[in-house]
Amino acid sequence: MNETLQTMKNRYSCRSFTGEAVAQEEVKAIAQAAVQAPSAMNLQPWKIVVIQDKALIEEMDAATMELLSREDKAAYERFLNRGGKLFYNAPCIFAIVKKAGSDLDCGIVTENIALAASSLGLGNVICGMAAMAFATKKGETFKERIIPEGYEFGMSVLVGHAVNREGAPHEADMSKVTYIG
Amino acid sequence: MNETLQTMKNRYSCRSFTGEAVAQEEVKAIAQAAVQAPSAMNLQPWKIVVIQDKALIEEMDAATMELLSREDKAAYERFLNRGGKLFYNAPCIFAIVKKAGSDLDCGIVTENIALAASSLGLGNVICGMAAMAFATKKGETFKERIIPEGYEFGMSVLVGHAVNREGAPHEADMSKVTYIG
Repeated sequence: MNETLQTMKNRYSCRSFTGEAVAQEEVKAIAQAAVQAPSAMNLQPWKIVVIQDKALIEEMDAATMELLSREDKAAYERFLNRGGKLFYNAPCIFAIVKKAGSDLDCGIVTENIALAASSLGLGNVICGMAAMAFATKKGETFKERIIPEGYEFGMSVLVGHAVNREGAPHEADMSKVTYIG
Repeated sequence: MNETLQTMKNRYSCRSFTGEAVAQEEVKAIAQAAVQAPSAMNLQPWKIVVIQDKALIEEMDAATMELLSREDKAAYERFLNRGGKLFYNAPCIFAIVKKAGSDLDCGIVTENIALAASSLGLGNVICGMAAMAFATKKGETFKERIIPEGYEFGMSVLVGHAVNREGAPHEADMSKVTYIG
């Protein structure tokens, strides 16, 4: 099994980060992997916004937790049990913003970011919940700072140093594969 | 740059295959990488159908080219100029079938398949056009053979041995990345 296959096998969802900043050369390597993602007709209907502003991350986290505490108790409790932070103390958020209707292309980029981070030994987790930050009271402010005109939130990947580097990936379920011929 | 980053950098869309079969251990390694893809809440709203039946691939190819010749002349000419085959003579099609509304998860799987194939030195190309096979006169037959109840076509990745192994990936456009903080 080569390193790329190994990276895919070992990647796991990291839900506890030390908060320590990611080295900028690693951030750039992940960003480069992102924009190397294939897309339909190579139209690249997305942009990557790398958020490392601690104050902004904290503000989005707190606003979203506040929203969840009122509107989605189950999710709120889940995050409380995981340390009380929506973004798990991650120092870096790769936000993928996209043109409407390009979810599949967005998924491709998402995986490049996650795998690039994993290959560098960084913890990472794909975080759709970040979308909720834009539905909070401060949502319009967050939009102005993060989402360019003509784009919408696609997905985010939280990246940082894992508190426990030995997370468990899900089991490969080979029953989901069928063969014809 | 590690091997995983290198794989992402070097992956390119292969549009000419020798037709030679892919070794079954490589097919299985790619299928395993596919089902190791992360998905929202690990729901894995997809299945992987690996088509290596030459007659079926030919039949889907011919039926779709016939449809294009009538309904999409531009696409038809494009494929004619590329050798006249929708599937570029690929011996193996990884079809991802999915639950409705899970395009982003489908994109993540798609990229795992493409990168796994690239890491093994196999040519590959993400092929959305395969969807059209199910709109041909034989579409219902293809659906019955390929798409399980409750699923729909998501995406396909054609895999095989490249005629010319030195394809060019697209340039990384770093202007698509912005940094906050």
